[in-house]
Amino acid sequence: MTRGPLVESRHRGAVAVSDAEGQIIFALGDVTAPVFPRSAVKALQALPLIEQGAADRFGLSDEELALACASHSGEAAHVAGVEHMLTKAGFAPSDLRCGAHWPIAQAAAAAVARSGAPLPLHNNCSGKHAGFLCVAGAIGVDHADYWRPEHPVQRLVRSVLEDFTGTALGEACCAIDGCSVPTWAVPLHNLAHGFAKFGTGRGISAERARAAARLRHACAKAPWYVAGTGRFCTDIMQLFGERMFVKTGAEGVYCAALPQQGLGIAVKCDDGASRAAQAIMATVIARFLPLAASERPALTRFVEPVLRNWNGFDVGQIRISDALR
Amino acid sequence: MTRGPLVESRHRGAVAVSDAEGQIIFALGDVTAPVFPRSAVKALQALPLIEQGAADRFGLSDEELALACASHSGEAAHVAGVEHMLTKAGFAPSDLRCGAHWPIAQAAAAAVARSGAPLPLHNNCSGKHAGFLCVAGAIGVDHADYWRPEHPVQRLVRSVLEDFTGTALGEACCAIDGCSVPTWAVPLHNLAHGFAKFGTGRGISAERARAAARLRHACAKAPWYVAGTGRFCTDIMQLFGERMFVKTGAEGVYCAALPQQGLGIAVKCDDGASRAAQAIMATVIARFLPLAASERPALTRFVEPVLRNWNGFDVGQIRISDALR
Repeated sequence: MTRGPLVESRHRGAVAVSDAEGQIIFALGDVTAPVFPRSAVKALQALPLIEQGAADRFGLSDEELALACASHSGEAAHVAGVEHMLTKAGFAPSDLRCGAHWPIAQAAAAAVARSGAPLPLHNNCSGKHAGFLCVAGAIGVDHADYWRPEHPVQRLVRSVLEDFTGTALGEACCAIDGCSVPTWAVPLHNLAHGFAKFGTGRGISAERARAAARLRHACAKAPWYVAGTGRFCTDIMQLFGERMFVKTGAEGVYCAALPQQGLGIAVKCDDGASRAAQAIMATVIARFLPLAASERPALTRFVEPVLRNWNGFDVGQIRISDALR
Repeated sequence: MTRGPLVESRHRGAVAVSDAEGQIIFALGDVTAPVFPRSAVKALQALPLIEQGAADRFGLSDEELALACASHSGEAAHVAGVEHMLTKAGFAPSDLRCGAHWPIAQAAAAAVARSGAPLPLHNNCSGKHAGFLCVAGAIGVDHADYWRPEHPVQRLVRSVLEDFTGTALGEACCAIDGCSVPTWAVPLHNLAHGFAKFGTGRGISAERARAAARLRHACAKAPWYVAGTGRFCTDIMQLFGERMFVKTGAEGVYCAALPQQGLGIAVKCDDGASRAAQAIMATVIARFLPLAASERPALTRFVEPVLRNWNGFDVGQIRISDALR
């Protein structure tokens, strides 16, 4: 991060790009240390929703499947969509156990402030949680503790994560996420490998590959529901459609799949900064996704964005190190 | 930062502790590289307010002097105080050139959302800007461009910063701050030295030493006005009164003075993270400020704070490295 003539702050991180066979195509930094993927694996956490028949049984739309994979901004249509999912499956907003926070979108937060206080529906993870409830409903188990590691829903999720990342997930790598469900630490290499499998369907069962493709298609069709207005994941997937799946997670994580190239990408910024992880991910996408000249500017504006102050003056820029460039 | 059984994110930084003669008492990391101090030097930027007679002429209270040194949370009494300062000196909120942003305090932001949109008065720097306007009024210059580097007010500020830090400040180290005034990069060692002088009055003129003491006393008497409810700078100065001056700046900077020990402290987190810079500063204070046993818990809760998620569950902790401990 520069300010005027000098570097003001510096971020470090690691990147792994893998093919569907687990071969590393590109790596920088330590890609073997365990990383909590946080929300970057929501699409994998949403797979039981398809595989257990919940999406079909409750007639979930592409927008609703995208919400199950989302860290949404809490804008009105996100909140309405999650509420609709819950209603379809016979649940209520009071069944959500994600906790409440103000909408990520400033305008949405201001609107909530005008009418009251934020609810669990506004939590960026409410769509994922609605998905978990749908799975509990579909498999016919009590839903009250759906967020606990030992609940059947979270056991299904863990099994999916183990299959995609090729790791055994136990207590030694388990922590509690911001929304209270388990998050399982996995090396960046394995995360990248998992997203190469997610993007290609290779290395997983045919049924699982179809479920993954359905979620990718839903996100490509309804990318606004995966994040929101002006957000990186939404803008990138709007730009590239089926050619790209990308998802952010807290503490500087990004995961992506490039189905046509057969590649998965995983990024972790050591210090947890999203601003750096996003610039790193944009740089890696620009390197591995073949782009038409007309597509390049829309992506490269995320690579080295200008920083503006409260008066809108240019005060600095994010710059990518030579090692990554 | 830990999450469950693992380290999730890592921050690096540098610390300098200096005496008033510029001797380094303690240092970690690079203390010679230029660092933009941002809002951490607001108390130095406020000195012309005393030295040019503006504080006396306009009858500014301790609370208003504290606001001139503040990165306030935009709570109602902060905003009212800044408006009062402006009125006393014959200015209006429309004269502020800091730009607008939502109040730092969530409850204050919600209150602003209910009644409208944020104004420059809500900007955390509005008290500093009101101070600059007061100086322009006192020295009888046109105030319109008070924020520009070449304006007499900013020339006075630069001269104060040069005197305290013992550096020559030119274009090569000048950038634009979030609120549009110049910010001058200075090595951490020089910042620590400057705050040792600020805390002791040694190495500066007697008049300047009196002005510095007046600002320190004002902040010690009205620490809520320097930051706000629940903020680190406010809580620490409420705890230690005249024994401690501490001020945060954007991008992971903290400066502090320990007058009785004759020490100045400057901290920069490489990646700009306030959460880490605050834990570092709390650790250094605990090391160099003699504490009664009864005072220790109130400080050490900032050293290794527990992290809670949206449901209030303990999910991890900030931990200090052995090198700093």
